[in-house]
Amino acid sequence: MILDGKQTSIELQNKMAIEVQNRKEKGLKIPHLAAVLVGKDGASQTYVNAKVKACEQIGFQSTLIHLPKETTENELLAQIETLNQDENIDGFIVQLPLPAHINVDKVFQQVKPEKDVDGFHPINVGRMVKNLPAYISATPLGILMLLEKYNIETAGKKCVVLGRSQIVGLPMSILLARNTKIGNCTVTLCHSKTSDVKKHTLDADIIVVALGIPEYLKDDMIKNGAVVIDVGITRIDDLSKKSGFKLLGDVDYQNVAPKCSAITPVPGGVGPMTITALLYNTLLACKKEIYL
Amino acid sequence: MILDGKQTSIELQNKMAIEVQNRKEKGLKIPHLAAVLVGKDGASQTYVNAKVKACEQIGFQSTLIHLPKETTENELLAQIETLNQDENIDGFIVQLPLPAHINVDKVFQQVKPEKDVDGFHPINVGRMVKNLPAYISATPLGILMLLEKYNIETAGKKCVVLGRSQIVGLPMSILLARNTKIGNCTVTLCHSKTSDVKKHTLDADIIVVALGIPEYLKDDMIKNGAVVIDVGITRIDDLSKKSGFKLLGDVDYQNVAPKCSAITPVPGGVGPMTITALLYNTLLACKKEIYL
Repeated sequence: MILDGKQTSIELQNKMAIEVQNRKEKGLKIPHLAAVLVGKDGASQTYVNAKVKACEQIGFQSTLIHLPKETTENELLAQIETLNQDENIDGFIVQLPLPAHINVDKVFQQVKPEKDVDGFHPINVGRMVKNLPAYISATPLGILMLLEKYNIETAGKKCVVLGRSQIVGLPMSILLARNTKIGNCTVTLCHSKTSDVKKHTLDADIIVVALGIPEYLKDDMIKNGAVVIDVGITRIDDLSKKSGFKLLGDVDYQNVAPKCSAITPVPGGVGPMTITALLYNTLLACKKEIYL
Repeated sequence: MILDGKQTSIELQNKMAIEVQNRKEKGLKIPHLAAVLVGKDGASQTYVNAKVKACEQIGFQSTLIHLPKETTENELLAQIETLNQDENIDGFIVQLPLPAHINVDKVFQQVKPEKDVDGFHPINVGRMVKNLPAYISATPLGILMLLEKYNIETAGKKCVVLGRSQIVGLPMSILLARNTKIGNCTVTLCHSKTSDVKKHTLDADIIVVALGIPEYLKDDMIKNGAVVIDVGITRIDDLSKKSGFKLLGDVDYQNVAPKCSAITPVPGGVGPMTITALLYNTLLACKKEIYL
């Protein structure tokens, strides 16, 4: 079974579009997402544009703030403060990666938790860990939504998460271990210091790969019937393509897919779900459902 | 090898006592810990008394606030606010468990993060997850200190944590997976929904048991040479003792210990280290080393 993130996103976004339309008719506030992009990284620009476009398609307001790559940390912090105080903005994101001269942690601690729809502020991370109302980072949340949509059983399953990034791997490992509907997995978190990754993955019912290493997960590393979630998305030069590149996931899809009971494709899997989850968080922010 | 938490605590507390003495001589502020106890649970009273006594022994100031079990949530929140604002108090704890009519999460969110030396506020949890300066909860921190003291190698080791409590199991699993000196383990977090605990523990180099089930971990569940950390401490009636009870850990110590390369006893293992870690956090608070 293919876990179709594109199709699932269309369905979930359609639902949100209807809710926005209803809010409009009732004279309620329309969700408004702002995105801050610093510099001109090709992939970042693509992602931000996709987020803005998705907002428009479902009737959200959106604002794109594009700052030059020379922007200082203080200038960025000031921009964030402006967005914190702008009552018309329900939530905003600062697109990663940021230029090396800017301290990422400082930036995310400046974002008002109530508007932190990417869920990167420590207080949202802590509330997520403690199972309190919180914005959950878009990629892990999108994966949870996809697992729920396809009724993937998680309780009591062995889950291996590959990669301990703050944005995906680590929160994913925490979320899947929680005592919640999509959760209750026995989670093993593997990373660069793990000695025998294959031994872990071979035993796993569910594998989440978030390493950024194209085609890392091979068919001889998984058992038959595994559920595989591919978070990787790497641009590889490909002159045969109009864009000049192709996108590769962290899974050797062609060989792995036949062994899986369910798998996400790249593109069209986790990527669209990340955007959908971000929109969902923005809607929650507008409705003040996380913070009063 | 016995990981002697009592002896290690004496050594670490002696160091802190010298530092306090030096501060005194320089006219600097002496650390001051306050503890709030609600009601009259026997074990809680014992723990709080041990904390207060430890403060006195190393030259900290301490204040014990004992509230009746009928204390309302609002009264407790008001008490916390008083402590938040008292400039003489560097850090304070609210002893668990609290009476059922009080919302624990609300209580810990009321504690000023700068004084939250138990590390239970979501912002300290989030900062711990993000590897930012944070108060780390006393029990997990005490275990890290003990592992460090005995030079237990953790990098690349397979670690199984049994129990996903907010206070011990879950933070322990996160801390041991971090890219830090005592860390870099491949951690599996097991809990009530885990189907085959024994399969996981048999394969583990390091096992942390935090279930509160006396003598749960048996010798046939571990491999030779494992490191076993026993967080459990349950009072069992025992009329042959003067106190009327004995303390049992989560490990069947008598049979498990001979197979281990290192193990913590109960009592005298994790318990004293928890107190030492709390004192350490209070010292950090006094020195404003976590929050400026």
